[in-house]
Amino acid sequence: MILEDVLIVDPVDGQYIGTIEFEEKIEGIIRKSDVTSTKSENILFPAFVDPHIHGIRGIDTMYASKEDFLKFKECEALEGVWRFFPTTVTATFERLAQIQLPDEPEGFKLHVEGPFISEKRKGAHNAKYIIPPVNRLFEYVQPATIGLITMALEWENFEEFANTCTESGIKVSIGHSNATFEQARWAYKKGYTRLTHFPNAMSPLHHREMGLVGAGLYFDFVVELICDGLHVAPEFIELIYRIKGADKIMLVTDSISAAGLSDGHYMLGDLDVYVNDGIAKLVDGTIAGSLLTFSQAVRNFHKFTNCSLVELAKVSSYNTCLNLGIKGGRICEGYPAKFVLLDENLQVKKTIGF
Amino acid sequence: MILEDVLIVDPVDGQYIGTIEFEEKIEGIIRKSDVTSTKSENILFPAFVDPHIHGIRGIDTMYASKEDFLKFKECEALEGVWRFFPTTVTATFERLAQIQLPDEPEGFKLHVEGPFISEKRKGAHNAKYIIPPVNRLFEYVQPATIGLITMALEWENFEEFANTCTESGIKVSIGHSNATFEQARWAYKKGYTRLTHFPNAMSPLHHREMGLVGAGLYFDFVVELICDGLHVAPEFIELIYRIKGADKIMLVTDSISAAGLSDGHYMLGDLDVYVNDGIAKLVDGTIAGSLLTFSQAVRNFHKFTNCSLVELAKVSSYNTCLNLGIKGGRICEGYPAKFVLLDENLQVKKTIGF
Repeated sequence: MILEDVLIVDPVDGQYIGTIEFEEKIEGIIRKSDVTSTKSENILFPAFVDPHIHGIRGIDTMYASKEDFLKFKECEALEGVWRFFPTTVTATFERLAQIQLPDEPEGFKLHVEGPFISEKRKGAHNAKYIIPPVNRLFEYVQPATIGLITMALEWENFEEFANTCTESGIKVSIGHSNATFEQARWAYKKGYTRLTHFPNAMSPLHHREMGLVGAGLYFDFVVELICDGLHVAPEFIELIYRIKGADKIMLVTDSISAAGLSDGHYMLGDLDVYVNDGIAKLVDGTIAGSLLTFSQAVRNFHKFTNCSLVELAKVSSYNTCLNLGIKGGRICEGYPAKFVLLDENLQVKKTIGF
Repeated sequence: MILEDVLIVDPVDGQYIGTIEFEEKIEGIIRKSDVTSTKSENILFPAFVDPHIHGIRGIDTMYASKEDFLKFKECEALEGVWRFFPTTVTATFERLAQIQLPDEPEGFKLHVEGPFISEKRKGAHNAKYIIPPVNRLFEYVQPATIGLITMALEWENFEEFANTCTESGIKVSIGHSNATFEQARWAYKKGYTRLTHFPNAMSPLHHREMGLVGAGLYFDFVVELICDGLHVAPEFIELIYRIKGADKIMLVTDSISAAGLSDGHYMLGDLDVYVNDGIAKLVDGTIAGSLLTFSQAVRNFHKFTNCSLVELAKVSSYNTCLNLGIKGGRICEGYPAKFVLLDENLQVKKTIGF
């Protein structure tokens, strides 16, 4: 197949008008002319990747059947998302064992968020299921089905368990954590350099004890960002971008099953969630995931930071692919032909190749 | 007089080996060779300026006689400080009226810290004297004797009073303030762009309400920094430097009368201060000013940030001179000949011209 004279945006090769030939993989690109304008009716991005998403349009990772997961994939495709990591909430191992992923060779690896988190920074997770890290998890959930695990780093046996994860090919992400700055320094030096939905649900920045938020700004951690303008102030998003640069940011939705539906009562795991005016909260007022769609996150980040399209391609796919070892996020010969075509307002026109 | 072959550090012209001729003013400079090394046994800096200092070696602005102020000046000269702003604490107008500055044409303008501050962010100020801004202050303290006033910006009549200050030649600095991010945005746009001992005693950074700390990082405020490694973590100092750059930072000591003396019991205004292991605190544990000397602040900032000597000249004098309208902070023809000669460890060897 051939796409002629589109504005190709690649995180490494830059942006240019080109023609691209592809089947399952990209077979060839003819680079025609460089462009500095971001205005085009046909902007071709590498398809998006969302490493943190609980649900969408009535589907919830914790309740989904194999069929639901396939519908999940269709919903995500409408957003330009090619790969995503269905994300669990803090629950018992027995409950996690009930999740049945489709039998696909690629995709559909879980992001296991909790139960090894901090009670002090639990956010919208159910405190009664929080426990210290323990290998017994893998008797209930096969390591091969887990892509990513979010945990607090201040557990005494963090390092031992995190090593086991790394050896099993599971990426460790630090989140829902009350770690001190010094603990974060230790983790960073040990190579645990990924932070879940920064700066939400972590020890805040104080000028004498800089906490995990301060460490996220100070060290070169790569961070998930929920870019709905509610979880994090738009100016803080811009500040994070100015401090860390586009190479260290990964957009996520952290969306729940209510995303794409109307206000009302929903569940997140076994907690009641009420959606009013597009904000999802627990009864106590805690923000409970987002209603954000991925393409909106992309438009928001662009609006909040005024970043370039090349930077936008980094934060929406490439950085996550690098971080999680996925061959993707590039428009370049030999890479999978997974694209999203955007209009000049960065609205999804269509997805290509999936 | 002539100084031959010294390493001259000027915030604008850079660093170079040169010979300088001067009387009261700098009359001529011969630039001999540029140098990139910071190692020299004779490093000539513009003399330092400290805009925020309560006291030193037993002298306290609130209790000082005219003679004490002259001794104050001698103590500061030992630190390489040429100009300083003796700083008051929150007190009644009657009490402030008792301060008798020496009859010198230049120098010795007060920094009036309080009483127009926030009770919620009072730090080591006595809450019982805090009041909203009121022009009556000037019936007790002549505007011409005030160089700088620190106040909270969330007072209803902030703008009216701040305008009066500006018209009287008094620089307004925002501090001891619980302002919101939006209030800080308003102040910044109105031209009130100076923050007192950032980020101490101000509304903290939260990811949804970024407070005055967030505003200080986000907007281009020029900020005082207490660089003792205790008031602000060294890594936070470095982060502020990385975010804001050396053009927007002014070193201050915020030192109290106990600075340069041994541990024991002291007063700050009418509050008891106990100094243990070099840290001054109120009975309730609140940090009560510093024991920092200015040359130590300079060495600390250099150590914490690894900045260049030219940047160090900016934060130790030039930026404050620009901010407060003082002709100084430069080693350049026509400027006052006020220098401090440092050795390769940035220890003061001698002061020249004062």
